[in-house]
Amino acid sequence: MSLGFDLTQAFFNPIQHSAPPSLTKRQTKISVIGTGNVGMAIAQTILTQDLTDELVLVDINPDRLRGEMLDLQHAAAFLPRTKIVASVDYSITADSDLCIVTAGARQITGESRLDLLHRNLKLFSNIIPSLALHSPASILMIVSNPVDILTYIAWKLSGFPSNRVIGSGTNLDSSRFRSLIADHLDVNAQDVQAYIVGEHGDSSVALWSSITIGGLSLLTLLEKKDIAYEKETLEEIHRAVKESAYEVIRLKGYTSWAIGYSVANLARTILRDQRRIHPVSVLAKGFYGIEGGEVFLSLPAQLGRGGVLGVTNVQLTEEEAQRLHDSAKTILEVQSQLGI
Amino acid sequence: MSLGFDLTQAFFNPIQHSAPPSLTKRQTKISVIGTGNVGMAIAQTILTQDLTDELVLVDINPDRLRGEMLDLQHAAAFLPRTKIVASVDYSITADSDLCIVTAGARQITGESRLDLLHRNLKLFSNIIPSLALHSPASILMIVSNPVDILTYIAWKLSGFPSNRVIGSGTNLDSSRFRSLIADHLDVNAQDVQAYIVGEHGDSSVALWSSITIGGLSLLTLLEKKDIAYEKETLEEIHRAVKESAYEVIRLKGYTSWAIGYSVANLARTILRDQRRIHPVSVLAKGFYGIEGGEVFLSLPAQLGRGGVLGVTNVQLTEEEAQRLHDSAKTILEVQSQLGI
Amino acid sequence: MSLGFDLTQAFFNPIQHSAPPSLTKRQTKISVIGTGNVGMAIAQTILTQDLTDELVLVDINPDRLRGEMLDLQHAAAFLPRTKIVASVDYSITADSDLCIVTAGARQITGESRLDLLHRNLKLFSNIIPSLALHSPASILMIVSNPVDILTYIAWKLSGFPSNRVIGSGTNLDSSRFRSLIADHLDVNAQDVQAYIVGEHGDSSVALWSSITIGGLSLLTLLEKKDIAYEKETLEEIHRAVKESAYEVIRLKGYTSWAIGYSVANLARTILRDQRRIHPVSVLAKGFYGIEGGEVFLSLPAQLGRGGVLGVTNVQLTEEEAQRLHDSAKTILEVQSQLGI
Amino acid sequence: MSLGFDLTQAFFNPIQHSAPPSLTKRQTKISVIGTGNVGMAIAQTILTQDLTDELVLVDINPDRLRGEMLDLQHAAAFLPRTKIVASVDYSITADSDLCIVTAGARQITGESRLDLLHRNLKLFSNIIPSLALHSPASILMIVSNPVDILTYIAWKLSGFPSNRVIGSGTNLDSSRFRSLIADHLDVNAQDVQAYIVGEHGDSSVALWSSITIGGLSLLTLLEKKDIAYEKETLEEIHRAVKESAYEVIRLKGYTSWAIGYSVANLARTILRDQRRIHPVSVLAKGFYGIEGGEVFLSLPAQLGRGGVLGVTNVQLTEEEAQRLHDSAKTILEVQSQLGI
Repeated sequence: MSLGFDLTQAFFNPIQHSAPPSLTKRQTKISVIGTGNVGMAIAQTILTQDLTDELVLVDINPDRLRGEMLDLQHAAAFLPRTKIVASVDYSITADSDLCIVTAGARQITGESRLDLLHRNLKLFSNIIPSLALHSPASILMIVSNPVDILTYIAWKLSGFPSNRVIGSGTNLDSSRFRSLIADHLDVNAQDVQAYIVGEHGDSSVALWSSITIGGLSLLTLLEKKDIAYEKETLEEIHRAVKESAYEVIRLKGYTSWAIGYSVANLARTILRDQRRIHPVSVLAKGFYGIEGGEVFLSLPAQLGRGGVLGVTNVQLTEEEAQRLHDSAKTILEVQSQLGI
Repeated sequence: MSLGFDLTQAFFNPIQHSAPPSLTKRQTKISVIGTGNVGMAIAQTILTQDLTDELVLVDINPDRLRGEMLDLQHAAAFLPRTKIVASVDYSITADSDLCIVTAGARQITGESRLDLLHRNLKLFSNIIPSLALHSPASILMIVSNPVDILTYIAWKLSGFPSNRVIGSGTNLDSSRFRSLIADHLDVNAQDVQAYIVGEHGDSSVALWSSITIGGLSLLTLLEKKDIAYEKETLEEIHRAVKESAYEVIRLKGYTSWAIGYSVANLARTILRDQRRIHPVSVLAKGFYGIEGGEVFLSLPAQLGRGGVLGVTNVQLTEEEAQRLHDSAKTILEVQSQLGI
Repeated sequence: MSLGFDLTQAFFNPIQHSAPPSLTKRQTKISVIGTGNVGMAIAQTILTQDLTDELVLVDINPDRLRGEMLDLQHAAAFLPRTKIVASVDYSITADSDLCIVTAGARQITGESRLDLLHRNLKLFSNIIPSLALHSPASILMIVSNPVDILTYIAWKLSGFPSNRVIGSGTNLDSSRFRSLIADHLDVNAQDVQAYIVGEHGDSSVALWSSITIGGLSLLTLLEKKDIAYEKETLEEIHRAVKESAYEVIRLKGYTSWAIGYSVANLARTILRDQRRIHPVSVLAKGFYGIEGGEVFLSLPAQLGRGGVLGVTNVQLTEEEAQRLHDSAKTILEVQSQLGI
Repeated sequence: MSLGFDLTQAFFNPIQHSAPPSLTKRQTKISVIGTGNVGMAIAQTILTQDLTDELVLVDINPDRLRGEMLDLQHAAAFLPRTKIVASVDYSITADSDLCIVTAGARQITGESRLDLLHRNLKLFSNIIPSLALHSPASILMIVSNPVDILTYIAWKLSGFPSNRVIGSGTNLDSSRFRSLIADHLDVNAQDVQAYIVGEHGDSSVALWSSITIGGLSLLTLLEKKDIAYEKETLEEIHRAVKESAYEVIRLKGYTSWAIGYSVANLARTILRDQRRIHPVSVLAKGFYGIEGGEVFLSLPAQLGRGGVLGVTNVQLTEEEAQRLHDSAKTILEVQSQLGI
């Protein structure tokens, strides 16, 4: 829209100079690929929490994309100055610090899981190389499901070192796990340390032996208090966690808010170089005795500006280790069927 | 879910005492009625910005309601301790400090505007007295459209003094207006003061004479710089504002994020007693020469814990005043047809 | 300062009504007693973190008090609307939610520790009953040193139930402990759970057996990795913590910033009812086998709006328990000499 | 402190790779020169508001410097991961985005203003070239007094383009001005737009003609309401502003908190590229008819990552313009005496 006169000139006496490039380049830029419910919940939480200087939205549907961009831009008066842009063209993502991929095909009725994966593989074949081309130094965060295999695919397609390809994995499962334990104990969820690791999905592994509340080991507590360690009872909590996403999908059709907070939380750790430990999907080969092949699954990993900085040596019981290996095997089998 | 043993007792030695009632009552409680896209964007922004101790969701659809509640609750590990509850029963809203109503009937194809209003009147007849009954000291914030008439209806149905019934009105229109002006001048939208007042909708009035940028009057600037005051050109910006909501609806089907930030912003001013000035829908009778009847429309009002604290004496041109009076008249005519 | 005309009236058409009392009373009020370096660091951190609606400063030096109040008030344009007031008269603290006491006599050269305590006892005899009188439902947070004995004295003088009298205790020691461990491991201090309990001072007890990093037990880690559990080495870290406050005092003359953040952190947990676990000075009788008398010392306690909600059952080694009992005995002996 | 074993290795399986340099360089770094009350209030506010990834302290007193650094570091558990370092050696400031200079000589009894300036000139001859050497692309923010002349000196000594040398100037005076007006009108100071420009000190100029409250012109308001424009009365407010810093100094010995918030506010605008308008000391030659020589004084300037982006054309009355020119002349005379 042109106003027919140059208002800016009337308002300002601009100071003529070229800003030193090093200064103008120090901006943080996050790109979110896919503006469905998950992508937008992530984008909006990132905006509200003021985590970036520039937010980019990319989608294949130009109308929805422009609508979401405008809806966020209209809130500019309530936000610190974050530049919000959108395009169907990946060149807009150039020099991103973090690319968050939420795009994914939805299962069609009757479609096999493998057929769905093949469709997603095709989708990623368009997305990932474009991102890697325009932001060769960025970190890739994969949120689309099945997250572990798609993170593996993204790693392969990007050509990035494994430390810069991360799946959101069981970060949210673990947070639901903590919330549920916190509710039972009437404590703050932020005082609970508890991990669900392995595959994000039905074969995920709850690490009971390393749960602590305010630094207090849950299992030690139960033993000490002569409370029988009823494995079945504890596994019920884990089942409730696995069930919880399904329940939300059944009730409202999709999940959005919790995954939005979870991924924004990961973005903060990475971009602020907080070096915090999160259970996320990483290249697991060589850790916890996982040797069979190149597989991504969730392990407690330390994250920062450099991406994955390391994997922590949480102590597993023999049973927990076995389950983790089974989890890895399950994923590897699917990968082998994909022919990648 | 029962664990079959009392873990809390094992973990804690609770201290026996009754908390003094005055302490436990000092919690802030916000209820959001309607969990559609607008209601949830408001709820989530309020949560992320940590504006309340307790957040209540109410909807007539128990499944969607429970789904949204669970989705927010699953994020507990990423949030300070905000209690999130939900029910179809209004008793859960008891003693709210602020009740935000986003529920509203949607226009059916072929339905007249008046028929739609009658349906909303019926809807509000259920909602508002229930809220007033359970939270007799609360502030009512109406977001549903047409916001000015529905705020009037809420005032009548609640029996509340007018200072405690507020419509979100043109607060968002004004923020879009500021963003657009800020974009043109390449300044921060937070440095632009500009109001759109009157009816939230096509008859809204842009107060050109009182726009300032960093304390600098826009019209004075144009005059001083010998830039002809081209009314048509300026009105184009106003048209863009009015068009902007329609455009988002056309593109993505509804608006959500911007109205979410806008209402969360009002909630902050009210609950933190910030005494800031916002253009919101208030009982306008007696202000700016509006005398014809009891009508709610947006005027620059100072808000705080007590609700509407006052209406500011912004200077209007004769034409702006005339438009405002026409706006009032338009709303009053509809109200008279409603028979309320 | 009078302007000779009523500008407010010109600016506003105030809306006549009395705000419902329940609404106007829902404000949060924090009083800080003592405006030395510690008191002011606490006050300023509370302001910056937006933790209260009203902040009260009290001191016996009216000049310094007014100077500090004005210095904070001059920043009003950069802060959300927090009311900042100050007086030498305790009536200004009326209806505080939280009273933070930082006032205390400083040791005079040659003065015995007991003589100093007697002087502080006299000082508290003026402060505490005044606070209790004007804010009978408030929570008392004692920061002055020796914090454990002064918290006991405050409890006795206030007549409050023990759950509403808390000493800042080893909350800061524990945070220094976490920072030091985090530095060694190059992790984020927020991922480290570690407690120092007992007396805030030389007899404090580091709970090595319950340290976890990202949920991983430190001692288990050392054992598993065949790293000899060298008690002496670990105790060196504890010594460094105890030394750290002395070092800061030696270098800059006093400590301020870290205790300011630490107490603001406690204030947030309490006022936002976060139910988080903090090592703070509480009435220890009956916990961890402490039976000899009424003694306050730091234990991991869950805090919320009701004050101390419970004490957690952290597992102690025999040696740790012994040290804790010795710590209690030390404090009790001093208390008996005070004749209170 | 060495632990005698490598705990990190036990805890982590680090992932071997070199982080891409572009990622690790995207950190924000702020250096604060001078760790007196002003420097530390700025440093602490910047930390609390989470404005930087790395905070550097520099001072000539190594003890005080180390004490302040440790005191801040001990709060690490309460802060997001900000790296806090300190040194007497300027090489530690390398590649800062923003250097804030608070160091300055204090007036000795009997010393003339000019002699004091000469001492500060000598001090700056050490500081500024060192900063410019190690951070050639940084923005210099001068806070030391007399701020306008020292900003001019810093510009000369740095060899930087004028857009990257800024004095804190009347940013705080203006905020005190806004607070005072807000108090009179019982509005939020954030709704008041009002500038004090010119020299930071006794010759500063209050721009009455451009004050707006919620977009409402103060002078227009007074005229419209038939309230006589009593210049003397309004100037009393200005005098109160000028007096306010002296009053705080008289009462508590120095000012710290308000200047801390004020400079942190400028840092946010610059580093987040907010493009907001602040009255700060900039090279004024060529603006508002100031032609006599190279002089820095406060004008409403738009700030961002590139430093000073432009100077706004606020409308001055003839009298205001005259005062501004007098202000410029006063400063130029002192500069000529300095022989620079």
